[in-house]
Amino acid sequence: MSQSTDKIILGIDPGTVIMGFGLIHIKGSEMHLLNLDVVKLKSDDDHTLRLQKIFEAVTGIVKEHKPDEFAIEAPFFGKNVQSMLKLGRAQGVAMAAALNFNIPIFEYSPKKIKLSITGNGNAAKEQVAAMLQQILKFTNTNTYLDATDALAVAVCHHFQTKNTQHGAAKSYKNWNTFLNDNPNRKA
Amino acid sequence: MSQSTDKIILGIDPGTVIMGFGLIHIKGSEMHLLNLDVVKLKSDDDHTLRLQKIFEAVTGIVKEHKPDEFAIEAPFFGKNVQSMLKLGRAQGVAMAAALNFNIPIFEYSPKKIKLSITGNGNAAKEQVAAMLQQILKFTNTNTYLDATDALAVAVCHHFQTKNTQHGAAKSYKNWNTFLNDNPNRKA
Repeated sequence: MSQSTDKIILGIDPGTVIMGFGLIHIKGSEMHLLNLDVVKLKSDDDHTLRLQKIFEAVTGIVKEHKPDEFAIEAPFFGKNVQSMLKLGRAQGVAMAAALNFNIPIFEYSPKKIKLSITGNGNAAKEQVAAMLQQILKFTNTNTYLDATDALAVAVCHHFQTKNTQHGAAKSYKNWNTFLNDNPNRKA
Repeated sequence: MSQSTDKIILGIDPGTVIMGFGLIHIKGSEMHLLNLDVVKLKSDDDHTLRLQKIFEAVTGIVKEHKPDEFAIEAPFFGKNVQSMLKLGRAQGVAMAAALNFNIPIFEYSPKKIKLSITGNGNAAKEQVAAMLQQILKFTNTNTYLDATDALAVAVCHHFQTKNTQHGAAKSYKNWNTFLNDNPNRKA
């Protein structure tokens, strides 16, 4: 199916101080970096204003790049309850900006993302960034680790989807669907 | 200034299982109940699907009732980190539905809401519901406490705003503004 794949994946790392985002374009078996940046949220802004900025930023990115899929990190540990509520809200508004355009959302644990990119579930952020530079052929241009973290989610999602398209996890509903997806098996 | 007040306040209590909402209409010095209900989120839906349902539900309510202000509870304690992240996400998508229509968001702590409605910051949910029935003249029609909780936030927000309009907390920028707001003081 790789010849028909043409999609844009948006990865988001929505912190409450800095929001990272990364966009990749998958065309056939190739993967290209489209964009990689951060949105800085002023520390003197109140919480609601920051949420508004996140919503507007993600809406802007979605309108500009029209991603087909949205990937986000699901950090289910660490931190205290108050910071988790704030982080959850930040993630919620970012997700809503995608939901608003009917873009499907996928989430991955930090361990899964690191494992997917580096082969090591406990890799440091710097190792993830270095591996992404190698995979996507870009040099370090003083990008924040929040941006490469976001990019990592997008790339992880691509790797997961690619695997399922190759039959590892996809469940075919019937034989016709299978044949359509695998024309070579018809002979 | 009360003669010019004509606004609709939406209160939301976005849990991850049931989302309550309440709408009040403020006209002059009068307050009327517009709507009070819950949206049930199926327990077998996955987390993202629930968020989508919350976003769609709040968007639907906003489109139908065109609220001028949005009020939400800010529970900054209790619960464990994982449930707080999920709650934060639920709140985030609900808030984003309001932000999407440029509706200003206000948040109040549970203690402040209870104090505002009942005069007791530690009142039980049932006491809050009973007081709301008295204030807004409706009878208990087997409404969930999630719905009256949401209504309580809306009413609390009205009480807070009303107080500032009456000079308790509003800071006047200059004497002319003060005179405009208090024509009787001109004599």
